[in-house]
Amino acid sequence: MSEIETVKTIDYAESQRARFLDELKQLLRIPSVSTQPEHQPDIERAAVWLRDKLLTAGLPRAEVMPTSGHPVVYAEWLTDDTDAPVVLIYGHYDVQPPDPLDLWETPPFEPTVIGDDLFARGASDDKGQLYAHVKALEAFHATLGTPPVNVKCIFEGEEECGSPSLEPFIRDHKDLLAADVAVISDTGILSKETPSMVYGLRGLAYVEVEVTGPDHDLHSGIYGGAVLNPINALCGMIAKLHDENGRIAIPGFYDNVLDLSDEERAELSQVGFDRLTWLEEAGVKVEWGESGYSIIERTSTRPTLDVNGIWGGYTEPGAKTVLPSKAYAKISMRLVPHQDPDRILNLIREHLMAIAPPAIDVQVRTLGRGEPALVDRHSPAMKAASKAFAAAFGKEPVLVRRGGSIPVVATFQSVLGIETVLMGFGLPDDRLHSPNEKFHLPNFYRGIETIIHFFTLLGKSGA
Amino acid sequence: MSEIETVKTIDYAESQRARFLDELKQLLRIPSVSTQPEHQPDIERAAVWLRDKLLTAGLPRAEVMPTSGHPVVYAEWLTDDTDAPVVLIYGHYDVQPPDPLDLWETPPFEPTVIGDDLFARGASDDKGQLYAHVKALEAFHATLGTPPVNVKCIFEGEEECGSPSLEPFIRDHKDLLAADVAVISDTGILSKETPSMVYGLRGLAYVEVEVTGPDHDLHSGIYGGAVLNPINALCGMIAKLHDENGRIAIPGFYDNVLDLSDEERAELSQVGFDRLTWLEEAGVKVEWGESGYSIIERTSTRPTLDVNGIWGGYTEPGAKTVLPSKAYAKISMRLVPHQDPDRILNLIREHLMAIAPPAIDVQVRTLGRGEPALVDRHSPAMKAASKAFAAAFGKEPVLVRRGGSIPVVATFQSVLGIETVLMGFGLPDDRLHSPNEKFHLPNFYRGIETIIHFFTLLGKSGA
Repeated sequence: MSEIETVKTIDYAESQRARFLDELKQLLRIPSVSTQPEHQPDIERAAVWLRDKLLTAGLPRAEVMPTSGHPVVYAEWLTDDTDAPVVLIYGHYDVQPPDPLDLWETPPFEPTVIGDDLFARGASDDKGQLYAHVKALEAFHATLGTPPVNVKCIFEGEEECGSPSLEPFIRDHKDLLAADVAVISDTGILSKETPSMVYGLRGLAYVEVEVTGPDHDLHSGIYGGAVLNPINALCGMIAKLHDENGRIAIPGFYDNVLDLSDEERAELSQVGFDRLTWLEEAGVKVEWGESGYSIIERTSTRPTLDVNGIWGGYTEPGAKTVLPSKAYAKISMRLVPHQDPDRILNLIREHLMAIAPPAIDVQVRTLGRGEPALVDRHSPAMKAASKAFAAAFGKEPVLVRRGGSIPVVATFQSVLGIETVLMGFGLPDDRLHSPNEKFHLPNFYRGIETIIHFFTLLGKSGA
Repeated sequence: MSEIETVKTIDYAESQRARFLDELKQLLRIPSVSTQPEHQPDIERAAVWLRDKLLTAGLPRAEVMPTSGHPVVYAEWLTDDTDAPVVLIYGHYDVQPPDPLDLWETPPFEPTVIGDDLFARGASDDKGQLYAHVKALEAFHATLGTPPVNVKCIFEGEEECGSPSLEPFIRDHKDLLAADVAVISDTGILSKETPSMVYGLRGLAYVEVEVTGPDHDLHSGIYGGAVLNPINALCGMIAKLHDENGRIAIPGFYDNVLDLSDEERAELSQVGFDRLTWLEEAGVKVEWGESGYSIIERTSTRPTLDVNGIWGGYTEPGAKTVLPSKAYAKISMRLVPHQDPDRILNLIREHLMAIAPPAIDVQVRTLGRGEPALVDRHSPAMKAASKAFAAAFGKEPVLVRRGGSIPVVATFQSVLGIETVLMGFGLPDDRLHSPNEKFHLPNFYRGIETIIHFFTLLGKSGA
């Protein structure tokens, strides 16, 4: 394939921007919240919509495949060029719940363009990024008739609820999914000016804790002082999960943590991190965290523990003097190589049981798990991706580790035996999982270009 | 008044039990939840209903009087006997919210008799007990034409939300409310077999705490580890409100606490307290609390601190990896003589500010306050009440302090200069403020009898 042909494909994509945006808006209007059962029909709707768009984009095969949970959209485009590598494109069409709703400035499921940004739940995570791949493939179809690589797509609907069905699905369809390399656009670049690529991701261990004191709600005046309050007890237990240095105080938690190499630490320190910009994006006055590590190290290379939700007792307006029976917390830990999520889930369960006061019953349920991942920074596919970024963004990307979790990267490694290229186009202020999530539209369009370059370079390299 | 006349009045009350119960059910069907604005019409409805029943019971004057909040139902029956003492009857017609609704075995506002118990929100606290007074007055009207004492009634609609308008109302109507003694039936007896009277009550200081970390919700994968999570921070702050001996760790908190006298401690130890029964009623495996004090001392004579509600982050089903912007807690403290609620409110506010990590903003709002109270155990009115209990229950009542709060007792002392007789008919397992609240019907009927005896004895004593 010549340079001229790439230009033609890119020109086509540029000419279709308005339509691509309109289509993305259609997808964003479907509230495919995977974690809430009432959105089951929306999940189905989003899957069918995607399948249809894949067919329209020229893929000869696209179908909605059942799993034990939400369906997978599978598609493939195997060209006549059997020497060309097979690329497995992963994305997810489900989204986080939109709440708290009152903090959205535009409706979460009515995509709204303000300036260069498209506001909607899922705009950046991950519908916009996923759809960039579909539109890159359409551009090849419209200009060259066929992509320069063989393509398989696996788009799941459970990423935001921990992908319970994905690993079994991949194990059950190893032949179908066999590929040379995977590519995922579900991360971000450091800034508009600084393209970057992710080579390491954190894993996840997520639990819900239910703490029971008295077996029914009590009057705090009658029993207060002689019955241990489960909210107070739960707070005491949560307080004990960190020490005074911001380290996680669960025995054995750090046992298998891979320390940063001096080389990585040096690289990270040259990323061009600006503390004040970061503070502004985070919306905090001051940073916090584990002693001895920088902000960028804390958020990408160190494990963490956050309470994601807590509730118990009376939470309506006004005063109620109840001493409640129960209190609950959702607690998640971000894990780093080589922590094992199952081991960590056991550790926190045992630790919570151990530190619970005798008057308290504790139940710990697993809500999610995901392996941390490190990919080979020097693979041919990573090199092709790097050149593709340079072509589209005018600058070589920086290589970084990130704090989020994409457990499928580890699954692709262990089950399919392939490396993943993390080619994300989000920005740090995209407000993923928050009100007013947005996708920077120039990144949507440059993302499509980058993908076109990447597939072209990959096709040439035969990687 | 002769013994025979008392018998006649009591016989009348006995003959009307079925109708009294039907009327009480009518009152319980009105969901007069004072803390929730949507129940404002129900509050009004309950007040009007009560006024009408007071008029029907023979009181020459009964009216719904406005306050800055929910109205007061005021009534009076001044007899020709100007030597007879004036008794001020206090009660409250508002109720606690019924939630958690799913734990009710019968609908909270559809009163249901099962065996000897009447189940409904407010059955014991305080509609059933308040209504016993109205029906005792009706019995005098029906049999003697007039009660043996002069009567004033003040029934408020804000007790369950901290009575914000009551003290100003009493100050503004000192002449109208002038009386020789007050009587309140809003407490309980130790058991069916052991009548008791309360001479001490705890006060209350209630705050809502709002803790802010980042100024918007964040993705815990992207920011986790470098941004202090406000839920974790709030839990840490709450954990610091008690020390390892179950004492409240707010500096200065215990400064003015009146220690138990040896005499009181000896009396309390003879109350016939059964630990196993108490554990069963509380629904706990084991007691908890301040070192060096018994269960009964902890729940009635010692100050306490309970988190009554907590919330923040994602609390719906499933997992959401949010690092939230805010977390909230409702925290109340039960106070004992001679703690000053305003001083305690300042202390907790200052302490929470002091222990908040630098990355966290804290706001503390007052939701309620009430003075603790101790009444004269040896007044003539207390002696008359004691004899009345003995006549109705066949046994002299034990004198105890209780853990709940009835701040109006202190207001009656300070504003009207009168003592209060706490003549309650509840039972420890009435589940006040909890699902499945009930009133033991034999206590409703014996309560009416006790009140008839009390007014009769008080009229004779001229106390």
